[in-house]
Amino acid sequence: MNSDFPPSSGSVQWHLGPIIDALRTSRESTHNIRHQGRVRELPSRDVLTQVVNGVSAALFPTHYGRPDLNDESIDYFVGDTLNVTLDRLVEQVRRALRFSPQLEEDDEALLANRARAITHEFAASLPALRALLVSDVQAALAGDPAASSVAEIMLCYPGTIAILYHRLAHCLHRLGVPFLARLVADIGHSLTGIDIHPAATIGGSFFIDHGTGVVIGETAILGERVRLYQAVTLGAKRFPVDANGALVKGAPRHPIVEDDVVIYAGATILGRITVGAGSTIGGNVWLTQSVPPGSNVSQAQSRNT
Amino acid sequence: MNSDFPPSSGSVQWHLGPIIDALRTSRESTHNIRHQGRVRELPSRDVLTQVVNGVSAALFPTHYGRPDLNDESIDYFVGDTLNVTLDRLVEQVRRALRFSPQLEEDDEALLANRARAITHEFAASLPALRALLVSDVQAALAGDPAASSVAEIMLCYPGTIAILYHRLAHCLHRLGVPFLARLVADIGHSLTGIDIHPAATIGGSFFIDHGTGVVIGETAILGERVRLYQAVTLGAKRFPVDANGALVKGAPRHPIVEDDVVIYAGATILGRITVGAGSTIGGNVWLTQSVPPGSNVSQAQSRNT
Amino acid sequence: MNSDFPPSSGSVQWHLGPIIDALRTSRESTHNIRHQGRVRELPSRDVLTQVVNGVSAALFPTHYGRPDLNDESIDYFVGDTLNVTLDRLVEQVRRALRFSPQLEEDDEALLANRARAITHEFAASLPALRALLVSDVQAALAGDPAASSVAEIMLCYPGTIAILYHRLAHCLHRLGVPFLARLVADIGHSLTGIDIHPAATIGGSFFIDHGTGVVIGETAILGERVRLYQAVTLGAKRFPVDANGALVKGAPRHPIVEDDVVIYAGATILGRITVGAGSTIGGNVWLTQSVPPGSNVSQAQSRNT
Amino acid sequence: MNSDFPPSSGSVQWHLGPIIDALRTSRESTHNIRHQGRVRELPSRDVLTQVVNGVSAALFPTHYGRPDLNDESIDYFVGDTLNVTLDRLVEQVRRALRFSPQLEEDDEALLANRARAITHEFAASLPALRALLVSDVQAALAGDPAASSVAEIMLCYPGTIAILYHRLAHCLHRLGVPFLARLVADIGHSLTGIDIHPAATIGGSFFIDHGTGVVIGETAILGERVRLYQAVTLGAKRFPVDANGALVKGAPRHPIVEDDVVIYAGATILGRITVGAGSTIGGNVWLTQSVPPGSNVSQAQSRNT
Amino acid sequence: MNSDFPPSSGSVQWHLGPIIDALRTSRESTHNIRHQGRVRELPSRDVLTQVVNGVSAALFPTHYGRPDLNDESIDYFVGDTLNVTLDRLVEQVRRALRFSPQLEEDDEALLANRARAITHEFAASLPALRALLVSDVQAALAGDPAASSVAEIMLCYPGTIAILYHRLAHCLHRLGVPFLARLVADIGHSLTGIDIHPAATIGGSFFIDHGTGVVIGETAILGERVRLYQAVTLGAKRFPVDANGALVKGAPRHPIVEDDVVIYAGATILGRITVGAGSTIGGNVWLTQSVPPGSNVSQAQSRNT
Amino acid sequence: MNSDFPPSSGSVQWHLGPIIDALRTSRESTHNIRHQGRVRELPSRDVLTQVVNGVSAALFPTHYGRPDLNDESIDYFVGDTLNVTLDRLVEQVRRALRFSPQLEEDDEALLANRARAITHEFAASLPALRALLVSDVQAALAGDPAASSVAEIMLCYPGTIAILYHRLAHCLHRLGVPFLARLVADIGHSLTGIDIHPAATIGGSFFIDHGTGVVIGETAILGERVRLYQAVTLGAKRFPVDANGALVKGAPRHPIVEDDVVIYAGATILGRITVGAGSTIGGNVWLTQSVPPGSNVSQAQSRNT
Repeated sequence: MNSDFPPSSGSVQWHLGPIIDALRTSRESTHNIRHQGRVRELPSRDVLTQVVNGVSAALFPTHYGRPDLNDESIDYFVGDTLNVTLDRLVEQVRRALRFSPQLEEDDEALLANRARAITHEFAASLPALRALLVSDVQAALAGDPAASSVAEIMLCYPGTIAILYHRLAHCLHRLGVPFLARLVADIGHSLTGIDIHPAATIGGSFFIDHGTGVVIGETAILGERVRLYQAVTLGAKRFPVDANGALVKGAPRHPIVEDDVVIYAGATILGRITVGAGSTIGGNVWLTQSVPPGSNVSQAQSRNT
Repeated sequence: MNSDFPPSSGSVQWHLGPIIDALRTSRESTHNIRHQGRVRELPSRDVLTQVVNGVSAALFPTHYGRPDLNDESIDYFVGDTLNVTLDRLVEQVRRALRFSPQLEEDDEALLANRARAITHEFAASLPALRALLVSDVQAALAGDPAASSVAEIMLCYPGTIAILYHRLAHCLHRLGVPFLARLVADIGHSLTGIDIHPAATIGGSFFIDHGTGVVIGETAILGERVRLYQAVTLGAKRFPVDANGALVKGAPRHPIVEDDVVIYAGATILGRITVGAGSTIGGNVWLTQSVPPGSNVSQAQSRNT
Repeated sequence: MNSDFPPSSGSVQWHLGPIIDALRTSRESTHNIRHQGRVRELPSRDVLTQVVNGVSAALFPTHYGRPDLNDESIDYFVGDTLNVTLDRLVEQVRRALRFSPQLEEDDEALLANRARAITHEFAASLPALRALLVSDVQAALAGDPAASSVAEIMLCYPGTIAILYHRLAHCLHRLGVPFLARLVADIGHSLTGIDIHPAATIGGSFFIDHGTGVVIGETAILGERVRLYQAVTLGAKRFPVDANGALVKGAPRHPIVEDDVVIYAGATILGRITVGAGSTIGGNVWLTQSVPPGSNVSQAQSRNT
Repeated sequence: MNSDFPPSSGSVQWHLGPIIDALRTSRESTHNIRHQGRVRELPSRDVLTQVVNGVSAALFPTHYGRPDLNDESIDYFVGDTLNVTLDRLVEQVRRALRFSPQLEEDDEALLANRARAITHEFAASLPALRALLVSDVQAALAGDPAASSVAEIMLCYPGTIAILYHRLAHCLHRLGVPFLARLVADIGHSLTGIDIHPAATIGGSFFIDHGTGVVIGETAILGERVRLYQAVTLGAKRFPVDANGALVKGAPRHPIVEDDVVIYAGATILGRITVGAGSTIGGNVWLTQSVPPGSNVSQAQSRNT
Repeated sequence: MNSDFPPSSGSVQWHLGPIIDALRTSRESTHNIRHQGRVRELPSRDVLTQVVNGVSAALFPTHYGRPDLNDESIDYFVGDTLNVTLDRLVEQVRRALRFSPQLEEDDEALLANRARAITHEFAASLPALRALLVSDVQAALAGDPAASSVAEIMLCYPGTIAILYHRLAHCLHRLGVPFLARLVADIGHSLTGIDIHPAATIGGSFFIDHGTGVVIGETAILGERVRLYQAVTLGAKRFPVDANGALVKGAPRHPIVEDDVVIYAGATILGRITVGAGSTIGGNVWLTQSVPPGSNVSQAQSRNT
Repeated sequence: MNSDFPPSSGSVQWHLGPIIDALRTSRESTHNIRHQGRVRELPSRDVLTQVVNGVSAALFPTHYGRPDLNDESIDYFVGDTLNVTLDRLVEQVRRALRFSPQLEEDDEALLANRARAITHEFAASLPALRALLVSDVQAALAGDPAASSVAEIMLCYPGTIAILYHRLAHCLHRLGVPFLARLVADIGHSLTGIDIHPAATIGGSFFIDHGTGVVIGETAILGERVRLYQAVTLGAKRFPVDANGALVKGAPRHPIVEDDVVIYAGATILGRITVGAGSTIGGNVWLTQSVPPGSNVSQAQSRNT
């Protein structure tokens, strides 16, 4: 065998020196997450996933927790799961707060106190959060003719998962950790194809069927018993721009959907308009103006050529 | 350092007592998966994922199994993989049957026998299932100008994965374990963004390109050689309601798509209508009435303002 | 307890003999990945995921790498991560090249040399790739009123992930390993619901918001500073067919989108048409003809019935 | 490159047919764990290791459990850990009972009841077991001049681990699952080099220093406050043989060591003899006859040549 | 809080530059595993552990394999396990052969052929190896009054594990891969405290009780039905030195132990002497001269002072 | 099937309330690791194992690190591995220091500074430590006629592993973290059966063959080129007791072994005696008095009865 025989691929010398130099130069010139001379540790997507799983297990131990729990063992499980989960969450909250513009972030003690206070409030809101989620599951059972049991809705419906992630994310958003809320929301989006901004306000008994492609924007407000199908967009029509042409952040720009509205697949509802209570918005409808309560909006038929 | 120094976050006392009590109260008042005094163990999403992976590996050992199999070793691999997989499946079937309304579920022996019989039938249908899947892969190779090899179609096309999950889910549905079928379907949905109800009937040589947002409803019937693009909906127009206003479950309400139909991206086809053989439905078309064989349906152009 | 008591399910005999025989027959009759008498080992989805994670960590160590890196430790991390990652990549490139029609694949030495050369070029293009990705992140920060920090965009935006996967996939495609490129693209698609063909050419400062359902076809060309919303399709109108009726692969058939174009949610743009620089395409627009620079295309309103 | 180039090793055909046949023949002719036509599932070493870890964590949550437990969280942790651990243990007990000669093992219901009763008793004896282990740790702290804290003794002394495994194994032995007890003892042996038969009876405040090579036989009886060093054997002198020359199992044949005895490294004490209270047995001593209380036994010096 | 507050420990700069330089200098000056300009990949302890586990599972599927195998599934399991295991082994053999002084190791093709041939022979000897191991287990059952079942001996006796590792290691040694043999032997030693050189020749029906501290040297030869207890040494008395004072490697220097010999705990037998058939060597005996068949050697008693 | 049918074991109610109460009572009455009102987090055995593996990989990248490193990649690997490892170590040092009696442990800032300083010193001593370990490996190669290569000695000799653990443990002991040192030593003991107190002082070119049962005490001092065999004890004869009868900790009580001494298997050397340079101590010798340089000590023969 001659000398051309290839050595095993692992021993290749990749001549990385100039590449590493160029990457360092690129890092230093373009963006820099050091703040006042210190690297800020980022929240961890993996740990947040564990947090959501832990909270889910504590809220619904039989469906999302451990099999074979019984009346005696269940509270030990809930208590231990919550302790582990809140210990994890408080550290993530602390990291996220460092990115909060309002905080003097090098005051570590203050930061730690804030993180603990927020996590406490999060824990305290869990029973109410559970009640909301139960209303959502009941809405799904009532709203989908294909659903046959609560277990099926909790295990097999992406809408259930998306709403669970949203309600947790919204709680974190409300408590003052928007970065963490956004990360939780994105994990839910990745799992389900349903994209709900954590700042969106959504009433009880909410149901999303199929769900892929649903988008609900930052300032959207949904009432009670709203039902959505796949690919519904509750979006912004245009973005307000300030005197300098820069985007104005946070301004109300997404729809208000009142109680008992049903929006069918592919409908697009844009701008700070109001869909009146009890309305039905048909599939693929494109709507940019408010409609009164009880409206029934549908789109024109395609033609057969 | 003064006494305000924060202890390490882990030692926070979360005062969980009242929260745990409230969660218990919420659990007890709202829903309860005990049945005749006994908790019913739920099927496991993780184990079902292993089951699908095991079946895939047994059906297509070179693509979804282990590298370096050869003519001698391949049957040992297939045999051992099937044994492990069927042992796992039979336990999941048993759990799912407990949720079946028709069964006196506390007859454990009957349940175990049913689970074994169903799993046996599932195993026996694998060769036919493989033939169907081969026809699907061939359809993809023929139908996508960007596809260059069978390997690429099997490894890189979400449509392939979605159809694989559907064919397994449909088989489980047909054999009488709809809950399990639904769970398998939802795993496939989460992986691909393609949502096919396990009860939908789909002929051979089926191809879905891109696929995100496709929805195929419970009572849809698709013929041979159907081709779909992303965001196609084969849905229900409205839900039949009984005399009491309750949804009627299981009634035919989704389209029948005959052989050799192509449906382009974003088309929405609703209701128990028939799309005649050989028809082409254009992108974004909204269709709620039957069209005869050979139809060519498209939508109006947008206008340039 | 009588003799009918079911043995533990694990000891079921599944009578696999005929099933295994039928599967073997099916394998042998239908498709065969042996080439010139030899099985070709397939690229591994898991390893490619590790490769993308490794490259991401080397490009953006603070966001996608390891917490607590500092000025001293960061280059060791980048260097070691790249070495591991390139060693993994070169083996995947070698496997993928075996599926390349142009290569005499049983010339193992040639194949290994090609794989090493390609991986070297891939490594050399990383600094330029990083610059492109930085431009994309800046575009997101500028373009989304809901975005509050670079960290949020890098951790919480599916668009960021989709573009990262695309830029790596496109680089592999350009270097001559289209199969690997396709696999990387599909992993990105599965994570984000955004489907970009690796051959598509996309300029800097690219931003996709929400993103679920976006499809960008094989021969699409996008200029600088293009912005897309969810469910936008840049697709083919029809597939060119050759004299024998077979699909012509690789022909230009997807849109050209010039610099500074914004395309809103659900717009469908089909065929080798050109969207002129600075144009805005409204939500749900269906466009199959070129529009000049500065166009503003929107669709008709739905009617309220 | 010529045709002699070796294919990748993975594709070797190993011609396993005759080997597999020969192994089957060997299995069938030599030993057979089927009992009355049924395979008996064996206890699992891995699960038993988890059980021991779980019990250890419940007994000593701060040292062997989870960091950062506090007064509020600790009982949830203990309760949840015990529930999980006992659920695992009861299944292992059930498997082990099948190997018990006294049981009609095909009475599954009886077996399950026995397993539950034994596991209940095991749980009930945990507080007493903890008290014994605390006495052992105190003895170590008092007995080793190199020991500086309880934490050091619990984390760094193989003797502590060996005694922990023994006390759990002995409890299982006493409750009627000798097979499980033996398996627990062997795991402890493998971790520490200290080999204590689970049937051996050992009083409180027991300390083994260094420990490698210690052997304590099945019928040995040790009093309170015994201290052993490495390589001490408390063994059998000879094995009683019955009229047919077969070994008589279970007969008393190992030493009785009374309270407050110290036995230095390498001493070998054989047969059913008694080492009187308060005796000291020197290093390397070979002892096969009883010694009265307060004895001081040492061996002759080596000579310098 | 003042500026002395410690940053989180992770951001410490360790000033590794000079340390890394010094380590490189040390590496380059002292020893170098490159051979003819190439690094030789070392065998992997982890993979060898998998190989031993795989072989054990194939030899004794019920005890060391998977629970719930039955007459139908067992051969698939054995076949698949062997294929995976031999594929792993052949790569380890190839690596080890590179360290063999007799081979021109840069002839990769020759090396690969040798590795395959050796692995084939290893596979072919498995049935005979199983027969030997069965004889060992029977000897344990017969020889230990505390043993109550074959299952107990296979799962709970370190001697069983040590002999299993030895018989596999010896087979590899005999087939010409002494380095691999040594590594397998050392894994067994670490698990059991029993140290048997892989070159030692040991007849059937071999039993080691307790075993910690047993050492059997490279050139030892043991007959049939030998029984050893813990801490027995079959060692070398002195090492032959050549004319230059260098150790002569491989010369016979350990004992020959004939059939049916029993050697009790702590006995030390040194040098190329012969222990005649049927002899009994007492505990702690120090023996450096041959003894005729039927001897009964014991040591003097210690004295009670 | 009647109502006696056992429910699945998992749903057993274990009635843990009184057991948990009793365990709490036991915890509170017996020992308490809270110190000044705060729980002190314990060092982690698992993390320390990672630290030792990391240091080993940095010291000997080819043998204990990653395969396929080359001249270019090796320093990146060493640098990154050290950074990760030292980040882990500094946290363990900090935890261990809390158990140090000399420190006011609630001064967190001081503690963190000490931990960093110690870890820095540890890092700085690595090159010297490597030189020592290289001398040990060379001694093994020279001293064992069965050894055939450096790779064999580094991968297959428990003595090599034991010395590696000792040299790291001794370094930590010297730097003022005896608790951590003890934990590292115990991990090494568990892996090898060789028990070396981390405070023992051992010169270069140290070799232990076989090694099971070796014990080297806290105040032992060994010179250069010492060679030990299995089961050698360098122990204390008696423990000094103070006026109150309490053990005096730390007093010199173990042997001094001068340069070039060989001690054969099973020898026991006790007390603060000196074994003169160049001496040979025979197997099983029991020695409690100093011997001059060049001594040759052996024990009497056993008798053949």
